[in-house]
Formats: sequence, C-alpha cells, structure tokens
Amino acid sequence: MQTQHTMRSFDDELKYLADQIAAMGGYAERMVAESIEALIQSDAGLARKVVADDVFLDEKEREIGERSVIIIGRRQPVADDLREIVGAIRISSDLERIGDLGKNIAKRVVAVTEGRQPMRLFRGLEALADLALTQLKEVLDVYASRSIERIGFVRDRDEEIDAMYTSLFRELLTYMMEDPRNITACTHLLFCAKNIERIGDHATNIAETVHHIVTGRQLPLERPKEDESHRVVATPAK
Amino acid sequence: MQTQHTMRSFDDELKYLADQIAAMGGYAERMVAESIEALIQSDAGLARKVVADDVFLDEKEREIGERSVIIIGRRQPVADDLREIVGAIRISSDLERIGDLGKNIAKRVVAVTEGRQPMRLFRGLEALADLALTQLKEVLDVYASRSIERIGFVRDRDEEIDAMYTSLFRELLTYMMEDPRNITACTHLLFCAKNIERIGDHATNIAETVHHIVTGRQLPLERPKEDESHRVVATPAK
Repeated sequence: MQTQHTMRSFDDELKYLADQIAAMGGYAERMVAESIEALIQSDAGLARKVVADDVFLDEKEREIGERSVIIIGRRQPVADDLREIVGAIRISSDLERIGDLGKNIAKRVVAVTEGRQPMRLFRGLEALADLALTQLKEVLDVYASRSIERIGFVRDRDEEIDAMYTSLFRELLTYMMEDPRNITACTHLLFCAKNIERIGDHATNIAETVHHIVTGRQLPLERPKEDESHRVVATPAK
Repeated sequence: MQTQHTMRSFDDELKYLADQIAAMGGYAERMVAESIEALIQSDAGLARKVVADDVFLDEKEREIGERSVIIIGRRQPVADDLREIVGAIRISSDLERIGDLGKNIAKRVVAVTEGRQPMRLFRGLEALADLALTQLKEVLDVYASRSIERIGFVRDRDEEIDAMYTSLFRELLTYMMEDPRNITACTHLLFCAKNIERIGDHATNIAETVHHIVTGRQLPLERPKEDESHRVVATPAK
C-alpha cells in the first residue's frame, strides 16, 4: 500500500515534469522571438546565440523522456497519471522541435543579410511570427491551467496562421519575379515563414495533447483546414 | 504471479506493436516513393491518392499510442520492455511525420506541373529521394532485426543526404535566376527537396531510437554535421 509520503512524492514527480515542460516552453518562446528579432535587425550575434541555445531544449527533452520512463517503471501509474506522463513526453518533443525551427530561422540570418534587404519583405514575416508566438503562449497557459475550453480558439488561430502564411508565400514569390536579386533572400524568408507556420502546428499539437491528458479523449483527427501554399502559382509580369 | 499464458500474451502484445510499426514503415515508404513518382510524371491522380492515403498513418499512430498506454497500464513493464513500448510510440510518430512529408510533396504536384517543367530540375530531386528511401528501408530493417551495428552507416548516409540537399538548393536557386518563369516550380521543388531531407532526419531518429531500445543508452546528441543550405547565397548572372 502506498503511504501518504509516497503519494506526495509521486505528486512531486509529476509537478517536476510539469515544471520542466513550463521551463522548456518559456525557453522555446524566447528562442523563436529572438530568431525573428535577429532576422529583422540583421543581428548575426543574436542569431549565433539562438543557434547555441538550442542544445538546452535537446537536453531537456532527453531528460524528460528518461525521467518519465523511470517514473512509469517505479510508480506504475494508471489512467490520468499515465496520460499525464506520456503527454509530457509528447509535449517536450513538440517544444524541442519548436526550438529547432527557431534555430533554423536564426541560421538563415547571414544569408538573408548578404542579399538585398527590402524591409517590406519582413513585415509579413513579423506579423506571422507574432501570431505564432501568441499561439505558443496561449497553449503553454492551457497546459499550465488545464483550461481546455480555450482549445477551440487555438485551432481557429492555427487556421489564421495558415492563411497568413499562404498569402506571404504568394507575396515572396512576387518579389522574386520582380527582381532576381531578391531571389536568395526571399527563398530563405520563404523557409523562415514555413518554419513559423510549423511552430503554429506544433503549438496546436500541444493543445491537443493537453485535451487528451485532461479528458482521456482524442480530438477528431482532421483539423478544419490546412495551409494552401502548395497551390500557389505566380507568373512573371511579362 | 504471472502465468506462462500471461507471459506469452505480453510477448504477443509487444509483437503486435512491432508488427504495426513494420506496417506503418512499409506504408510510409510507399507513400514517399509514390509522391516522387507523381511529381516526376506530373501524375495528379497518383498525387491525390498519396494525399488520401495519409490518414492511415495518422490513425495507426494514434492506435499505437493508445495501445501502448493500455499495455503499460496493464502490464507494468520495466527496463527493456518499457523502452520497447516507449520506443514504439516515438517511432510511430516519426513514421507518421514521414507520411506527412510525402503528402506535402504530393500536394505540390499540381503547382509544379502548371509552371514550366524542365526535366533537368527533377534529376537532383530523384537522386535525393532515392537516397532517403534507401535510408528509410535500412532503418526499418535495423528496427526489425535489431542489428544496431548498422547505425553508424545510417548516420553517415544522413550526412550524404544533407550534402546533396545543399547542392540541390543551390542548383534550384540558379534556375530561378536564369528565368523568372522557373520561379514557381523551383520554389515548390525546393520545399519538396527540404521534405526529402527531413525524411532522412526522421529515418535517423528512428535508428537512434532503436539504439536506445536495444542498449538502454542514448547516442551523443550532436550529429556529425547538418545541412548547409541555410548559408547558400546565389547572385544573378548580371
């Protein structure tokens, strides 16, 4: 039989996992924000910092994975508690991936800076990043507070991100056609935009995992809509 | 105490998981091969089939996740068995993602076909896809056979994929600069190339997970090299 002490200690272990996820979340959020800042300010130093920072999330993901397996082995949790732990593994993997995407944006800063830097190119990207960061903050709140009634809102915002990404995709293609000297920078910016769109997807995954942790039920597989950028065809003016 | 029957039945459950992973692997492999074929042959029908097929992997991933949690809850496995089950969750998630990447390639078929289709554009992509598919087949074999001595080879091939992707990135940028009418098709092909490069990464993840299942140890975090496409800067001829 479990003693009161063991019970409290198991709760502590679950709390430890949740705290680590919260730490990863805050860290990933900062990395993404800094990668966008580095891009817009052409700040190669800040970009290098973001690239270096990424190892923290890689290590934390591993730590959470190993710790979770130890907890499962030692505590033999069932139902809610087990979902909580498996959910922590999943969420840490989404957050690690968000860090990778931020790192990938940061790595393109130098190539974008070497080409031309028409400031108008960055405007759409900045708006897209703002939306994705709001999304990420929101799902981290949902995880911390377990207020799953906000998940519908998260899915709606993901659609908004997808639509904005598709229009940015079209815009960047147009700039490339206007002037071949824009091609290098715009191509890297297209990949940055795609990375931001993916950050929105991972944030949405996190929301869905929280829903599963709390309710034990999966949300329907098909999300309402996806980005439509794969359909975009632009033709040169003449 | 566990009876002989229960023991055998637990083995059956583990075998069931491994069989599901093998089925997912074969399915993902076929999706990727067909997406490349659809792209090169401009086969919109085959592309639609690949897009529709993806739901199978989504459902299988969920099924493996749910089944794993039930097995853990009921069997309370430790050490090797627990690593095996948590490994199955991870691998199913990599395979589901590989299917997504194949689907994403297939979705671009129509946009690539509408623009110009210089066949030379596809050559590099085909070679890259061949390498990634060989990689995927290899890691599925490593999973089935647990022959982890082949993992070094898998990591080496991942470097080769990254190098080939970087050179393809540069080549596609050059085509865009040569003729703005290539821009739409080449942009979509750049994303296809990136998807293939990511398929190689996920295959490598799977190899690393198998290493962990078999040995209980993680491989060092830093992989030898990463793709260098983020550095590529191309300038128009005049």
